[in-house]
Amino acid sequence: MSAHALFRPEDTRFQVDADRLIERLARVLPAEGLVVDEDARRPYECDGLAAYKQLPLLVAIPDTIAQVQEVMAICSELNVPVVARGSGTSLSGGSLPHPQGVLLSLARFNRVKHIDAERRLARVEPGVRNLAITEAAAPHGLYYAPDPSSQIACSIGGNVGENAGGVHCLKYGLTVHNVVELTVVTVDGDLVTIGSEAPDSPGYDLLALFHGSEGMLGVIVDITVQLLPNPLTKDVLMASFDRVEDGGRAVAAIIAAGIIPGGLEMMDGPATRAAEDFVHAGYDIEAGAILICELDGSAAEVADQREAVEAVMREHGATAIQVAADDAEKARFWAGRKAAFPAAGRLAPDYYCMDGTIPRKHLATVLQRISEISEAHGLQTINVFHAGDGNLHPLILFDANQPGQLEAAEAVGSAILQLCVEVGGTVTGEHGVGMEKINEMCVQFASAEIEQFHAVKRAFDPQGLLNPGKAIPTLNRCAEFGKLHVHKGELPHPELERL
Amino acid sequence: MSAHALFRPEDTRFQVDADRLIERLARVLPAEGLVVDEDARRPYECDGLAAYKQLPLLVAIPDTIAQVQEVMAICSELNVPVVARGSGTSLSGGSLPHPQGVLLSLARFNRVKHIDAERRLARVEPGVRNLAITEAAAPHGLYYAPDPSSQIACSIGGNVGENAGGVHCLKYGLTVHNVVELTVVTVDGDLVTIGSEAPDSPGYDLLALFHGSEGMLGVIVDITVQLLPNPLTKDVLMASFDRVEDGGRAVAAIIAAGIIPGGLEMMDGPATRAAEDFVHAGYDIEAGAILICELDGSAAEVADQREAVEAVMREHGATAIQVAADDAEKARFWAGRKAAFPAAGRLAPDYYCMDGTIPRKHLATVLQRISEISEAHGLQTINVFHAGDGNLHPLILFDANQPGQLEAAEAVGSAILQLCVEVGGTVTGEHGVGMEKINEMCVQFASAEIEQFHAVKRAFDPQGLLNPGKAIPTLNRCAEFGKLHVHKGELPHPELERL
Repeated sequence: MSAHALFRPEDTRFQVDADRLIERLARVLPAEGLVVDEDARRPYECDGLAAYKQLPLLVAIPDTIAQVQEVMAICSELNVPVVARGSGTSLSGGSLPHPQGVLLSLARFNRVKHIDAERRLARVEPGVRNLAITEAAAPHGLYYAPDPSSQIACSIGGNVGENAGGVHCLKYGLTVHNVVELTVVTVDGDLVTIGSEAPDSPGYDLLALFHGSEGMLGVIVDITVQLLPNPLTKDVLMASFDRVEDGGRAVAAIIAAGIIPGGLEMMDGPATRAAEDFVHAGYDIEAGAILICELDGSAAEVADQREAVEAVMREHGATAIQVAADDAEKARFWAGRKAAFPAAGRLAPDYYCMDGTIPRKHLATVLQRISEISEAHGLQTINVFHAGDGNLHPLILFDANQPGQLEAAEAVGSAILQLCVEVGGTVTGEHGVGMEKINEMCVQFASAEIEQFHAVKRAFDPQGLLNPGKAIPTLNRCAEFGKLHVHKGELPHPELERL
Repeated sequence: MSAHALFRPEDTRFQVDADRLIERLARVLPAEGLVVDEDARRPYECDGLAAYKQLPLLVAIPDTIAQVQEVMAICSELNVPVVARGSGTSLSGGSLPHPQGVLLSLARFNRVKHIDAERRLARVEPGVRNLAITEAAAPHGLYYAPDPSSQIACSIGGNVGENAGGVHCLKYGLTVHNVVELTVVTVDGDLVTIGSEAPDSPGYDLLALFHGSEGMLGVIVDITVQLLPNPLTKDVLMASFDRVEDGGRAVAAIIAAGIIPGGLEMMDGPATRAAEDFVHAGYDIEAGAILICELDGSAAEVADQREAVEAVMREHGATAIQVAADDAEKARFWAGRKAAFPAAGRLAPDYYCMDGTIPRKHLATVLQRISEISEAHGLQTINVFHAGDGNLHPLILFDANQPGQLEAAEAVGSAILQLCVEVGGTVTGEHGVGMEKINEMCVQFASAEIEQFHAVKRAFDPQGLLNPGKAIPTLNRCAEFGKLHVHKGELPHPELERL
């Protein structure tokens, strides 16, 4: 949001000779693969977090891995920052361009290279859309499980960079649990393979390290994901509760009963009513909260689980339970949930979507506190979330044209994230830190921990060229934000501030 | 094995003043916590890979985290190597002492600190035995899933260090998938928290990075693991096949059918007969291979899966299928598998247990090649393995008292691991690299990749004090082993050789 200063001085310390850079890049990129003209660079000035805008110095759109290697070698040599970008759907400004840097678009890396149905693997390029993997696998009765809400548009390279989640991740894991191998171009243009198609790989677990690293360790150019067989049966239940707290307790009790649903999503009353107004999904608009639960597996397994889930829901105060009768009704139950964000856009001119994670058992109290914090700032927050894994998406409603409301929304958002940390949670569930939540990282981590992150970063990118200013705050930034945990009375390693 | 040179010159470059070190450590450790006497150090000279022996300079046995911090601060200041050790059951020499270093025993960190039944978490000290976690969780109807064969003895800290697997890991994941938070003492004595009880953690994924890092990044002093509810029902099937290849294909077909058994283990004919002779489990001694399959879940789910598994087994040539009638029979079916290693010890005076992983679809051909390789060296290899995840444990039988047999066994082992890499697998499934397989890492990885591992190591341990000479070979070692992938015609970063 505009109230933040986007980049700090230490993030914009680069002295780039643009003419020389253009001359060098033009030799390795196809003619239409180097974008210099300001108007043509404009579409790249922001990602899904449109409140943050920054024109890149240049845009490079390579066609081949060899070209990516050349671009990185040139940028390393000339000390030029590089921000990689897939579909640009990041909700945290992860692919926000750097003013002195190259925006490296991987849009042309959009091929599904191979589906190995027997081994249930797909080898894809990083610019392939998430849903396109499932579409390519469908003829084999297979699908790719992690399903961010943006799956129609977001690309798999970005999914790895942000370790994306989604409705199915409760049962089938985050992106990191569904990727087996990466090919990465290092900051100086080398090509390395990370992970393997075998179940475990010796050496340090760089595969997991790259997940959620937000483009700061290398440029991913090839990804092998595992596919799952389509479930034989799926049931979708929808339960109404008078109070959000009851729904929260039902969620905890379902998991505690040893059932891991394929999806377990909750919406509070205002979110339910907004979604119902928008898509007419048949939601209970009298409810204080609704819970949507998808069960998948064999017919016997699903029947068994449905019975158990219904019992737990009733025990925790469900006032009504509907079971979708057919595929059309299953789709309808989900339609409202999937439309919740656009529906929120009908309640207020603007909304700010947060993304915190908390231990499940604190759901009820945290929701109560979010409501109090919002009221104290004169705003309303509605709640839509991946209840099963404790990942909240509070939508803070505001009107940017009313003086002070943007700042109030930011204050509410920051207070919510600090609340998540207080109860043992984290400042991001699946949207990443990017530029948006970089100050909150100072709340989440002690300086020794942030220092360790920077040391890891230096192991991959000693010059600090990959996506500078994102994900891991400098200790100077934390000091300014007032949250620095001072280490033995002094700033540890002043040279860290270079990164 | 004795044929290897254990440490290379670059691993033993430390100039340690033993008297000064003893004087400093004695001030921070309890009296019985510093072992100087040679006879008292003797029990620490090897771990589960007893062929490798090395006396440590000193043994430190701290009682508290603060003492571990002090030991690390002193060793960092005096530039002294440190090898951390739990129960010392490593099969790859991961906790083999360093001749100039401190062996840091975490034996006194043996408390289960807290079981949170509602959140299904256990907070434990690193020296707690794997099985002791399940024992502590049992009153709550919970258990800890990863179950290495050594689970009676091995400690959870070592499980994290080696990212240990086990029978249940096919369905429930490796150690890395079952640990949520670590407290770590850094090489210079700081205390950092890694991971969180919430589902995802922002920042780089250091939690995964520590798994399988073999004590080379920090000293783990506190571990929070997730627990699972005991399954409602368990069935154990045992199928006979005329040929190992048929069993291998049945395994691939079960997984391809979308069934993930709780355990799926295979033994070839010789292993089956050895186990049967030893424990009289009722195994089919006429079979070319037997497959043991455990299914767990609700009664309906298990019944469903049992039917499907039996059909797949018959389709792939199962000549007989038994289903255990009761708990006693289930235990009996497993007893032979669990006793396979000691049973092998009755076939030959010595055996060498390998641990490679391959893509499942190559099971049949790899088993055939292992048999040919062994014959070519005049030895027999029997095979026991976690078939479901393609993790082989070939047991190479030999007699160390026959001249040349030890070397032949090592040659067979190395050839098997190279074969695993050739078919797209890895040189270790769950036993780690340690000292044993360090040369094979040169086969597995290109020099740019090994260089990247060293850079990560330096981010945590710039002086190279933590477990020197293990897990990641120096490029000099690879050059000597004849497998160095030379990078642009020269050794990259000669300073790497310090590590």
